[in-house]
Amino acid sequence: MKIAFFAGDGIGPEIMTEARKVLDALALPGVEALEADVGGAGYKKHGHPLPPETLEIAKAADAILFGAVGDPDCDNLERHLRPEQAILGLRAALGLFANLRPATMFPGLEDMSALRPEVARAIDILIVRELNGDVYFGEKAIRTLDNGLRQGFDFMSYDENEVRRIAHVAFRAAQGRKKRLTSVDKANVLETSQLWRDVVIEVAAEYPDVTLNHMYVDNAAMQLVRDPGQFDVVVTGNLFGDILSDQASMCVGSIGLLASASLGEDQTEYGTKGMYEPIHGSAPDIAGQGKANPMAMILSLAMMLRHSFGREEDAQRIEKAVSAALADGVLGADLGGSASTREVGDAVVNRL
Amino acid sequence: MKIAFFAGDGIGPEIMTEARKVLDALALPGVEALEADVGGAGYKKHGHPLPPETLEIAKAADAILFGAVGDPDCDNLERHLRPEQAILGLRAALGLFANLRPATMFPGLEDMSALRPEVARAIDILIVRELNGDVYFGEKAIRTLDNGLRQGFDFMSYDENEVRRIAHVAFRAAQGRKKRLTSVDKANVLETSQLWRDVVIEVAAEYPDVTLNHMYVDNAAMQLVRDPGQFDVVVTGNLFGDILSDQASMCVGSIGLLASASLGEDQTEYGTKGMYEPIHGSAPDIAGQGKANPMAMILSLAMMLRHSFGREEDAQRIEKAVSAALADGVLGADLGGSASTREVGDAVVNRL
Ligand SMILES: CC(C)[C@H](C(=O)O)[C@@H](O)C(=O)O
Ligand SMILES: CC(C)[C@H](C(=O)O)[C@@H](O)C(=O)O
Repeated sequence: MKIAFFAGDGIGPEIMTEARKVLDALALPGVEALEADVGGAGYKKHGHPLPPETLEIAKAADAILFGAVGDPDCDNLERHLRPEQAILGLRAALGLFANLRPATMFPGLEDMSALRPEVARAIDILIVRELNGDVYFGEKAIRTLDNGLRQGFDFMSYDENEVRRIAHVAFRAAQGRKKRLTSVDKANVLETSQLWRDVVIEVAAEYPDVTLNHMYVDNAAMQLVRDPGQFDVVVTGNLFGDILSDQASMCVGSIGLLASASLGEDQTEYGTKGMYEPIHGSAPDIAGQGKANPMAMILSLAMMLRHSFGREEDAQRIEKAVSAALADGVLGADLGGSASTREVGDAVVNRL
Repeated sequence: MKIAFFAGDGIGPEIMTEARKVLDALALPGVEALEADVGGAGYKKHGHPLPPETLEIAKAADAILFGAVGDPDCDNLERHLRPEQAILGLRAALGLFANLRPATMFPGLEDMSALRPEVARAIDILIVRELNGDVYFGEKAIRTLDNGLRQGFDFMSYDENEVRRIAHVAFRAAQGRKKRLTSVDKANVLETSQLWRDVVIEVAAEYPDVTLNHMYVDNAAMQLVRDPGQFDVVVTGNLFGDILSDQASMCVGSIGLLASASLGEDQTEYGTKGMYEPIHGSAPDIAGQGKANPMAMILSLAMMLRHSFGREEDAQRIEKAVSAALADGVLGADLGGSASTREVGDAVVNRL
């Protein structure tokens, strides 16, 4: 198990420490730990948010546990040197096209959500977001037009293969859950979405046991507030997935609780090569103060054990320990409690 | 006051009847009423969702009161014949670039929102959405690539003039409210957004009394759930505005309550030429049953009197009558009540 630990910026290092403590407590055989700098830390030490040596290590690893990137010192750098380019660069270089973002209410935390508890209680959604295409990776620039005006542009597109492979991921995920899949697009306006919808319908023929419906993205954003309990698996493109998954995570209450997996086509001995990271960012305002919630980082570790190493039992052990700690009231500042980063990590270890 | 009434499809005609009753009750001098078919109704009678005669009338009018379009019979038509093309076509032909979508909690209705009442109570947002550009109106198609794969694509762009004119609308609106403006973009990924941000910052220099901040769209979708009370005026592009304004409207509780104005550069004698419509759609499932809530349509009439005809007092009279009816418990099925479309309309007229 070659695992690359990329702690990154802000609260990244401190939450990574807790996740590694949890991994150590499992005492799994054959863990090989690799480490490297990314994000603002990468830029400061090596002049680039994704230094070549970091990319080498990422390629050599079976899985990457990724903390968070983002550093106010880097805000005024040119775009290609900014910390978030590390994430985009790793997604592209490793072909991580499938982003899984589970948003599930934790029992006992219904009162943390801005949604009414009876609405929030029903949240159990898996968002499957395409991560290698769409307007994220098309041609883009700021240019001066013939009429002398500055114009910013970005090319949005999907081809049928890109849609097909993410659709398969989503249908298979739905088969393992409640067998309902909602495909979100804007097919009444976008041709990219029209192709998306056409291909999802084609793929659906191979999954007769899954119920498929289509929803426009504006309606999906409404329905996620009105009645998030209606969703099981949601599949959507890169841009809409970015917006809706953050919205869904906030419906759960705190983004300090939500993990994500980014998977490609490369296989490890026991699963799929992937990158695992919390949904939240680097929170530079609270970095180094022991206030960060390490739960999302620890749950990212669980996803890693599940998807890259086929260790479903260990993944569930971690997830149950997290739930138990939450149910016992071990809550950090983001959840209105007073437990420190280390205390939350210890509480999970104690409940393993 | 040349007013074009385009009732459209589904519940459009029945809610339009109530709005016209309210207008008649005001007994304003010099109202000239024009009518024409749009949407599915336009297609069925004239073979096009925006028939040439309808467009002529739209151009001749000072203001358009627009019901709703959308008809399941038309779902399988080619895109350019589908009902929603009437909306897109009118926005383009009339240069309606500024879409104002107020989302405000009505006192007494806090319990209708999926958000907790103490969160919902604070909602008082004006979303200013650009409506003539972005990925909505760029080159788009489904084509076959050299490698034989089908691809859908859409060209996203803004030029500096497009951003500047909507920014001015938003800053002026903020001056008339709490003087806070949030510009929403995705400048960490999109060059279109980077230009957007650059130009908004340039325009800000002319409005030193307004506090400007920038937010990424994924964060904005989270913040609209977490703490919508933090927003005053929000300005954003066509696509993000579509998503966020629907999300914001659902935070208020029912989309049956929210109106919108789409304004261009053309002036009438007393204001700006515009189109006014509810946020909600044509709801074909409840059409003709007297169940539709006409409030959003009636509030659209109020916006029309304000923006196109400079009749602020009459606009407020209508808005107060609507609030009073709601506070008195005159609620349609969408709000858990039993008042029919006609009863809601009558209740507003009685309170004028
Ligand atoms: C940091 C940014 C480029 C990234 C994205 O937009 O994908 C982030 O928001 C995410 O969702 O992982
Ligand atoms: C019907 C559709 C084309 C339209 C849009 O996307 O603009 C609608 O959702 C709206 O917000 O007015």
